[in-house]
Amino acid sequence: MISVVIVGTGNVAQNLFQAFYKVPDIEIKQVLGRNEIHLAFAKEKVSINTDFSRIPTADIYILAVSDDSIGEVAEKFKDLDGLVVHTSGATSIEVLHKCNRAGIFYPLQTFTKGKIISFETIPICIETKNKKDLELLQNLGKTLSDTVIEINSEQRKILHVSAVFVNNFTNYLYTIGADICKESNIDFKLLQPLIKETAAKLDDLTPYESQTGPAKRGDQKTVHKHLQLIKSTHQRELYTLLSNAIKEKHGKEL
Amino acid sequence: MISVVIVGTGNVAQNLFQAFYKVPDIEIKQVLGRNEIHLAFAKEKVSINTDFSRIPTADIYILAVSDDSIGEVAEKFKDLDGLVVHTSGATSIEVLHKCNRAGIFYPLQTFTKGKIISFETIPICIETKNKKDLELLQNLGKTLSDTVIEINSEQRKILHVSAVFVNNFTNYLYTIGADICKESNIDFKLLQPLIKETAAKLDDLTPYESQTGPAKRGDQKTVHKHLQLIKSTHQRELYTLLSNAIKEKHGKEL
Repeated sequence: MISVVIVGTGNVAQNLFQAFYKVPDIEIKQVLGRNEIHLAFAKEKVSINTDFSRIPTADIYILAVSDDSIGEVAEKFKDLDGLVVHTSGATSIEVLHKCNRAGIFYPLQTFTKGKIISFETIPICIETKNKKDLELLQNLGKTLSDTVIEINSEQRKILHVSAVFVNNFTNYLYTIGADICKESNIDFKLLQPLIKETAAKLDDLTPYESQTGPAKRGDQKTVHKHLQLIKSTHQRELYTLLSNAIKEKHGKEL
Repeated sequence: MISVVIVGTGNVAQNLFQAFYKVPDIEIKQVLGRNEIHLAFAKEKVSINTDFSRIPTADIYILAVSDDSIGEVAEKFKDLDGLVVHTSGATSIEVLHKCNRAGIFYPLQTFTKGKIISFETIPICIETKNKKDLELLQNLGKTLSDTVIEINSEQRKILHVSAVFVNNFTNYLYTIGADICKESNIDFKLLQPLIKETAAKLDDLTPYESQTGPAKRGDQKTVHKHLQLIKSTHQRELYTLLSNAIKEKHGKEL
């Protein structure tokens, strides 16, 4: 049995709460947050608390709070005996330097408001300040996921940059696709199977191998036709930049 | 029973062949291509032919050839009675103007060498020059897919531009993610669940609603940290352009 206190009320905190709540080997001692209303998701299931001066004893304290407030929140946990971990991809373990025992518990996934996801296939990237805490954090991770992996702070930051490209920026390209469709009264949902296959292809192929399209083929005629169809200057700029990059990548390396 | 002749030996031709071959109501009369070696995928299953002066009678001729050669190939079909369709997203129906009966059969999907996919969920966008041919093409589409939709040439071109953004350009962002990981000896496969969830989210949310990340939050500190970590000038340029676009989109409209 591992006892945990979850700190925070955002998407990560809520998803971790729902996931740990189902695990018999995990005891959620409390969910801590500043705002009682935002703690509603845990109320009636476990103890909730807004008073950071009265933190119960637990094996692990999970700070699932915004990157900017981790340092400030961690202050409240510096005298405790338990392991204090944060869940941020972009933040060094150093931000927890005042805590006796510190670590990272970073689930590599996108968490969206109102959507509870399954952790089973999500890689959980862990790191601990003291080597002897690694096993505890590994055991915590294994209660949720098949992939628990030790990644140091430098590698985690790189992974986070990479995640911004494949998740945040990719989603922005979906937004452009949706905007283009909307202008011409086309149902964007028609593109959903294509979007899913684009992601699924990576099960078998590298993204380099998966590349298709006019830019990859050096089909300047289609590129030109597309640029004439795109009304927004910003979208044309992006189309040109990305097409040239694909051409260069595949021209040079083929 | 609908009889078809498939023309071409590329990824689209091969995928259409494999799919139609399984449909009892479809008779593949022949697969036509210039190069006998490239016709190997159909050999021993149906008649193959490299002689474009000896085309058998069929209800529908499907020209699954490269965009640039549709016009030239269509010449060979101009005196036939059957319906001649091409499968290109970016090419107008006008390229078939010499044919007695012309149409479009555009499966909205990415076809990759060596990968045979299921057509069931793929939208098939159809168009015919003569209204009376529409039903025939609808019936052909329905043998493969649950979504057969009439789309005119102008809308189809727009859909194709949109597909370039959500498929080709998205895949290029995956390539950047993979390159960044490789430089730091991180297994890119760790990002696969995130990539899939990014695509799957669109089942429930619009891409605008799905947007997350430092740029969306206006988290300049993380954006700055990321730019310091990215070594390639091109990647930094793209990171800045896309982050600013996300910030602007969500700042202005929120």
